[in-house]
Amino acid sequence: MKSTAMIDDVMRIKELKEKARDFVAERDWDKYHHPKELAISMAIEVAELLEIFQWDEKADIQDIKNDEETMSKIKEEVADIMMYILCFSNQLDLDLSEAVLAKLEKNRRKYDKNAVLKTGAYRKDKL
Amino acid sequence: MKSTAMIDDVMRIKELKEKARDFVAERDWDKYHHPKELAISMAIEVAELLEIFQWDEKADIQDIKNDEETMSKIKEEVADIMMYILCFSNQLDLDLSEAVLAKLEKNRRKYDKNAVLKTGAYRKDKL
Amino acid sequence: MKSTAMIDDVMRIKELKEKARDFVAERDWDKYHHPKELAISMAIEVAELLEIFQWDEKADIQDIKNDEETMSKIKEEVADIMMYILCFSNQLDLDLSEAVLAKLEKNRRKYDKNAVLKTGAYRKDKL
Amino acid sequence: MKSTAMIDDVMRIKELKEKARDFVAERDWDKYHHPKELAISMAIEVAELLEIFQWDEKADIQDIKNDEETMSKIKEEVADIMMYILCFSNQLDLDLSEAVLAKLEKNRRKYDKNAVLKTGAYRKDKL
Repeated sequence: MKSTAMIDDVMRIKELKEKARDFVAERDWDKYHHPKELAISMAIEVAELLEIFQWDEKADIQDIKNDEETMSKIKEEVADIMMYILCFSNQLDLDLSEAVLAKLEKNRRKYDKNAVLKTGAYRKDKL
Repeated sequence: MKSTAMIDDVMRIKELKEKARDFVAERDWDKYHHPKELAISMAIEVAELLEIFQWDEKADIQDIKNDEETMSKIKEEVADIMMYILCFSNQLDLDLSEAVLAKLEKNRRKYDKNAVLKTGAYRKDKL
Repeated sequence: MKSTAMIDDVMRIKELKEKARDFVAERDWDKYHHPKELAISMAIEVAELLEIFQWDEKADIQDIKNDEETMSKIKEEVADIMMYILCFSNQLDLDLSEAVLAKLEKNRRKYDKNAVLKTGAYRKDKL
Repeated sequence: MKSTAMIDDVMRIKELKEKARDFVAERDWDKYHHPKELAISMAIEVAELLEIFQWDEKADIQDIKNDEETMSKIKEEVADIMMYILCFSNQLDLDLSEAVLAKLEKNRRKYDKNAVLKTGAYRKDKL
């Protein structure tokens, strides 16, 4: 279990959204950020993340974590996806935390934990 | 400008990661969450978000925000993507905030704001 | 309407499948070509095609056709996607033509042409 | 090795393109088929194909072929992707066969078969 301090320990979603908003506003790039374009850009960035794992058998997770070059590429792609999610949320005044909490609640009902543990079931009906 | 209070105003990334971690652990689903599988799942969920905008001319953003049914679908899909990013970060002990801040810093240098404003340039080299 | 001769005028799907099969067999690469991996690779290549159109307003189609550099990139990405579809079909002994004809027949019933022309309807339920 | 007769044995690409063109023209749907939209639709359909393999360990290929229900879903999704490639090629007067042959030639030079066989190398630089 990881115990090292992270910026995630203190960073609020709102602050990340503001940083994304400022970066875009300073360049007058809001006009490009229609939600449809941002969804397209998410798809492109997720494919770049997926490319890191293309053709690979599933490597041991500890080995991935120890591979600095791979981790560096992974961080870049995850940051790109996250930036587009933040920009997307800014454009639509979307409360990311609320959306996640609502989905978690829905999934708690859909995948009752006792039933899941008893049957060993997984969703083939996505998270 | 939106002034309504959001859960994003107070929610720290760490807390969202913990909620995702608990949901997965309670169901003993960690074993399914190899980063490669989570990247595949992100790609599938982003495509579902993109599908909401498929074939559409770019609608006025205010109209999208006023369309409750569309916003409800958007929130579900964004939540799914976000959940997989949180799970992915948990698996690799990845500091999301640090990754975003590093990428923002890199992009600040790549797209100097004064140069961008003077030329009206955009990146065709992604965010 | 295009009247220039194309290789598509004479090429049978079977021949393209054989060329893909030979290329792979000569390199002993069959072992990498699990359908799941090929589907991942399709997703990556489609994202590269989509990237060519990222951020762009929809350009006039004639202008795209006249832009040699863009057309050259488009052809490369479409060829990559097509290669993976051929390899995928080879792995699963899938009759591509039969699959397309069956889907067309299904869609002819789903989208009756007279009803469509009368109402001007489009599918928001995909092709 | 499959010896059963297939429609692919006799179907020329041109014929499939014409069938796709007729289906679209009969419904006056050409106006929706900007290449950017068709690339978006390819991304959505490829994700639906990928979803069939989501979370799965790589099943034995023979088992997949013997699983009628899965094969039926696979054929539908592959047909959807193929239809969009045909429509995309129609819009841009693109010679699919020429694009594939050119890419194969390029890859033959990039991945010399003797070098590949001697080293057991694979591309981590895509097909």
